[in-house]
Amino acid sequence: MDPEIDFIQQGLSHLATVVDPDLPGWSRVGYSEYDVAGRAWVATQMREAGLRTHVDAVGNVIGVLEGADSAVPAIVIGSHTDTVPGGGRFDGIIGVLGAIEVVRTLQRAGIRLHHQLRVVDFANEEGNAQGVKLVGSRAIAGALTPEHLSAADDTGFTLAELLSSAGHAPERASSCRWDTKEVAAYLELHIEQGPVLEQEGVGIGVVTRVCGISTFVLDVHGRRDHAGTTPMETRQDAMCCAADAVLAVQRIAAAGRDTVGTVGTVTTSSPLTNVISEQARVTGEFRSPEGTVLDALQDQLAQEMHRIDGRHRTSSSLRWGHTDLPAIMDGDLSGIIADAAAQIGHDAVRLYSGATHDSVEMARLAPAGMIFVPSAGGRSHCPEEWTDIAHIEEGVRVLTQSVLNVDAVPTRR
Amino acid sequence: MDPEIDFIQQGLSHLATVVDPDLPGWSRVGYSEYDVAGRAWVATQMREAGLRTHVDAVGNVIGVLEGADSAVPAIVIGSHTDTVPGGGRFDGIIGVLGAIEVVRTLQRAGIRLHHQLRVVDFANEEGNAQGVKLVGSRAIAGALTPEHLSAADDTGFTLAELLSSAGHAPERASSCRWDTKEVAAYLELHIEQGPVLEQEGVGIGVVTRVCGISTFVLDVHGRRDHAGTTPMETRQDAMCCAADAVLAVQRIAAAGRDTVGTVGTVTTSSPLTNVISEQARVTGEFRSPEGTVLDALQDQLAQEMHRIDGRHRTSSSLRWGHTDLPAIMDGDLSGIIADAAAQIGHDAVRLYSGATHDSVEMARLAPAGMIFVPSAGGRSHCPEEWTDIAHIEEGVRVLTQSVLNVDAVPTRR
Repeated sequence: MDPEIDFIQQGLSHLATVVDPDLPGWSRVGYSEYDVAGRAWVATQMREAGLRTHVDAVGNVIGVLEGADSAVPAIVIGSHTDTVPGGGRFDGIIGVLGAIEVVRTLQRAGIRLHHQLRVVDFANEEGNAQGVKLVGSRAIAGALTPEHLSAADDTGFTLAELLSSAGHAPERASSCRWDTKEVAAYLELHIEQGPVLEQEGVGIGVVTRVCGISTFVLDVHGRRDHAGTTPMETRQDAMCCAADAVLAVQRIAAAGRDTVGTVGTVTTSSPLTNVISEQARVTGEFRSPEGTVLDALQDQLAQEMHRIDGRHRTSSSLRWGHTDLPAIMDGDLSGIIADAAAQIGHDAVRLYSGATHDSVEMARLAPAGMIFVPSAGGRSHCPEEWTDIAHIEEGVRVLTQSVLNVDAVPTRR
Repeated sequence: MDPEIDFIQQGLSHLATVVDPDLPGWSRVGYSEYDVAGRAWVATQMREAGLRTHVDAVGNVIGVLEGADSAVPAIVIGSHTDTVPGGGRFDGIIGVLGAIEVVRTLQRAGIRLHHQLRVVDFANEEGNAQGVKLVGSRAIAGALTPEHLSAADDTGFTLAELLSSAGHAPERASSCRWDTKEVAAYLELHIEQGPVLEQEGVGIGVVTRVCGISTFVLDVHGRRDHAGTTPMETRQDAMCCAADAVLAVQRIAAAGRDTVGTVGTVTTSSPLTNVISEQARVTGEFRSPEGTVLDALQDQLAQEMHRIDGRHRTSSSLRWGHTDLPAIMDGDLSGIIADAAAQIGHDAVRLYSGATHDSVEMARLAPAGMIFVPSAGGRSHCPEEWTDIAHIEEGVRVLTQSVLNVDAVPTRR
């Protein structure tokens, strides 16, 4: 069951030309004209592979290959083709091209599965200026709420308006929902985006958990004063408190096990160096594969801010956004993936994912599993993102074998 | 020689109505329509006080009262009426209204000075988005260069274009220059903008020095990586390095004697919390009344950045802008001011100014001296800025007496 790796190589090359020329790297930001064009091209590839395609109300591109037994639910495979601004050529993309290649491989081999096979290019996994990630998979899982759709960017432009601007129908978002009875299993091939596989010299990772994410907005209230005349010891400088908060996030995350913490922005009320900042805002996040650890990180930052406010004579308020809880990949499915890797002679290691994925939402509907392949230097979300084609080929092979193995397990609607 | 304090009170009230409704506080930003309207009103007040007025090519409003002896140079008094965005009602303004009231008081008393008296409302002391402070006094001192005029804001709009937009003639900026032979002395009444006078319970300050200012731009180069998958210990997070730099500025300034340090902005290449920042920029400044201390602060920050870069695996480059050296107020003139305060029964303390003033530029032309009156809570550059009218009255009285005392000293062109 050898994949035609040329198909994936050429697909990667083609999608690398469908990018926003005004952004660095290979940028195909969700619902931009480049993303719309990229997904239209993906639909064509699905049809050429023999899939019956449709695009749902939020833009998910779905290709269906009917199985021999219409009484059993579908095996779903896929990922996304949108990118972060300034992103790379592999994140998500190999999972979509790899899923289409699974279909092509089955067709070439003349194999008809018992289960229906659905291939999905999920819309806007990476999120948007409205702050909503996993838009497409969330809609399919029935978890895209009116609150998500009315979330607005800095200019007041809502997610619903963004969807409409790309030709979709946000008013029908609830029609995207799939029933749990429709899905037997979800499998996703993805680049690791971290350094573990490369460091361990192993080509295949089996994901046990996907990290949860807690995002926060910290608002610091200080006192506006003249920067030339106000002694250092009486200042209430919101900028200094914010800087201390950035380092606290770093320190707390570094002290945890498998935890990370990152600050996105520090903004202040006055850009002038001759005015002490009255207000500052810090946006950031923590990630952990354990829900209880996320809670502990939140508590630690709150306690640190109490001390930091004391040090700078400021007062801060810390608001936590919606926490994406860690998602647990299905143990049986992970066993099937590991067996598939062993069958075709590949070592596999179990690891957790620090990045979030469409599998988090799909895990609400059915057992979900993920296959990781190595990222060079552990780098991702940057133009330097790279995975060797030989590793991608191994990953597609393991995905194909995993689909066959799942198909061999009796399931029932 | 009692001032009519009603004139000043009414002037303060009137100017507090000539402000930008879209900005907080009492904002009359240099060369805005509100600033143009405010200075036109000041010119009217000058003429009503008996001054012959003209506006020079950069917008300085100059009122002249001829003296008895046309062979001696002018005594110059004044300040500015522009404000920082979100500023107060007293900074600069009491020096302009106070100077006009000196003329009114002399006229009421029928006193004709030997020296010509010039009253100046200096254009745009507070600076602009082009980063040039003291525009008007710089032009009068012959220190407004073509580089200053071609300095641009973020959108590429130059200072010359800003001047033209307000109806001035930047191409004739060199015509604003005064000869050193024209000026016998420069005296400026101003609010302290700091806490010293209030803390010491003294109504009059005699300024010995005006702090120098070194501004810097720190560019941090880190590495863009995925914020979910990159372990804390291998990150090269430009945001964390920038935060450490903010606290280093605070720490270095707090350790110095009479030094302050302030950061205006921290900006990064990616606003997303799921991407580690590759680049960050920090803008800030140090102030000290001693030039050698400014040099030492620069060295200390450079050394600190070396350590901080090591800690965060980043590389930073630190560029210092033009340093405004500390300006020394004239010793004899300070003695005359202190004598004037004593003559009318006021205590005076000598102090330095952490804020910069038009006196820095005027000190290039002639002996310069400054009279400070207390700022409530030491606060300035904020809407809460406040000085009791009784303190302003004392200040105007000391300014009037100082002018008389300078006039009594024989000077020669």
